[in-house]
Amino acid sequence: MIHATEITIRTFHTDAFGHVNNSRYLELFEEARWRYAEDIGLIELLKQKNLGFIIMDLRLRFRKPVVEGSRVTIKTSLDTLGSASGEVHQQIHAGQGSPAVKGTFHFILIDRDNGKSVPIDGEIRELLDGVKIN
Amino acid sequence: MIHATEITIRTFHTDAFGHVNNSRYLELFEEARWRYAEDIGLIELLKQKNLGFIIMDLRLRFRKPVVEGSRVTIKTSLDTLGSASGEVHQQIHAGQGSPAVKGTFHFILIDRDNGKSVPIDGEIRELLDGVKIN
Amino acid sequence: MIHATEITIRTFHTDAFGHVNNSRYLELFEEARWRYAEDIGLIELLKQKNLGFIIMDLRLRFRKPVVEGSRVTIKTSLDTLGSASGEVHQQIHAGQGSPAVKGTFHFILIDRDNGKSVPIDGEIRELLDGVKIN
Amino acid sequence: MIHATEITIRTFHTDAFGHVNNSRYLELFEEARWRYAEDIGLIELLKQKNLGFIIMDLRLRFRKPVVEGSRVTIKTSLDTLGSASGEVHQQIHAGQGSPAVKGTFHFILIDRDNGKSVPIDGEIRELLDGVKIN
Repeated sequence: MIHATEITIRTFHTDAFGHVNNSRYLELFEEARWRYAEDIGLIELLKQKNLGFIIMDLRLRFRKPVVEGSRVTIKTSLDTLGSASGEVHQQIHAGQGSPAVKGTFHFILIDRDNGKSVPIDGEIRELLDGVKIN
Repeated sequence: MIHATEITIRTFHTDAFGHVNNSRYLELFEEARWRYAEDIGLIELLKQKNLGFIIMDLRLRFRKPVVEGSRVTIKTSLDTLGSASGEVHQQIHAGQGSPAVKGTFHFILIDRDNGKSVPIDGEIRELLDGVKIN
Repeated sequence: MIHATEITIRTFHTDAFGHVNNSRYLELFEEARWRYAEDIGLIELLKQKNLGFIIMDLRLRFRKPVVEGSRVTIKTSLDTLGSASGEVHQQIHAGQGSPAVKGTFHFILIDRDNGKSVPIDGEIRELLDGVKIN
Repeated sequence: MIHATEITIRTFHTDAFGHVNNSRYLELFEEARWRYAEDIGLIELLKQKNLGFIIMDLRLRFRKPVVEGSRVTIKTSLDTLGSASGEVHQQIHAGQGSPAVKGTFHFILIDRDNGKSVPIDGEIRELLDGVKIN
């Protein structure tokens, strides 16, 4: 599935160039990943098991500036799922045409008590396998 | 004592109005309070005792906008010290004349393990009594 | 009217104390004021006239910590409206009972081209008079 | 040259995982690039010509968590310089050993009035050629 989240850009997202500041894109993408996770019931599962996803590697490509007041659509998809890691692709669309910003996020699953990586298996794997797009 | 910290305003501090965004002032003031605490040896003491100061109440007054590239001076003073709380005054100066922003912060001391308020006494009190301006 | 906005607290809102960081409350309150303004048609009016509201003075009172994953309700009301300024009260509710955080914001209206204060009159006044609670 | 900047991690840089939040790394890296630019006299040149560098593409690799109170060293180098773009490499070191976070930033030069890309030539090119490491 490709999940879509809508967010309106506020003054606090922008900087003096008049556009969304680079560091804010990471928060917009994070918000969209959370909403995706909520919509598929992943948050509840993670809380029960005291697990969390953390990002190991990310890439952002800025194609068009996004301005205050824009109503953007953030598309999120799980593209790859390995035994202990995966890759999420995200795009921010502000109006018609090609995306304004593209993001790629490599994640692993950790135990929130000790911060150690754990395998992606059991119920969480089942859930993610069901929404993966490739 | 009145402590002075210098910080240069960057693009990520500003918003599309071309000025420092309101929420960023809280970070600038927090940074200045940390540097003050470091300079008087307070950080070390707090770490040893696993204590931390938290803000209960704050007030900000915005008098002049501050722009990217400004080298601001943040003045910080401990004005009041009660048995379990105190009040810090801060001012951001950008250039000559009156301050651009004024802040007042009411704080209490907490135990970082349980989040509970604890009295300001012993070594921490001695230290703070020595720097208080009134 | 008392406007209500719902927002879910994410990891990027929190700090190492495990709660929402103080500076983030200003963004949460700002987001709620924007949604209020959208819901009553104020954003459109401001854009047509190239006007904007800016905060001159604010006060925050922190009563209870708010943690990641909380679904908070932010209540916003316009309490006072003068010829060139006004006062908005806001409360963040996380669960039952008294608010976790209370905010008071004094604002003025400015011309976005020159940053100068302008009177609150005409259509904007009419709109605000209609939603004011006192 | 490899430029080094020291920054102390504060509470507002961290999140409820107890580490620096991902989006904050972009601000730490941005701060280090600004200080580099100041130290070589680039800021002054950009201001005279009303030019600015913007990031087109970035990559972050997170290797070790960084906690509140850490005094980190951020190393910054200009690795590639084309006719209209370049690449900066950055590393955050928190203590001994390998870096905690690595960043790669592709930038272009723009005219701040119209946001259009301009060639990197003249005095700015001379300055950058002098500090480039490859």
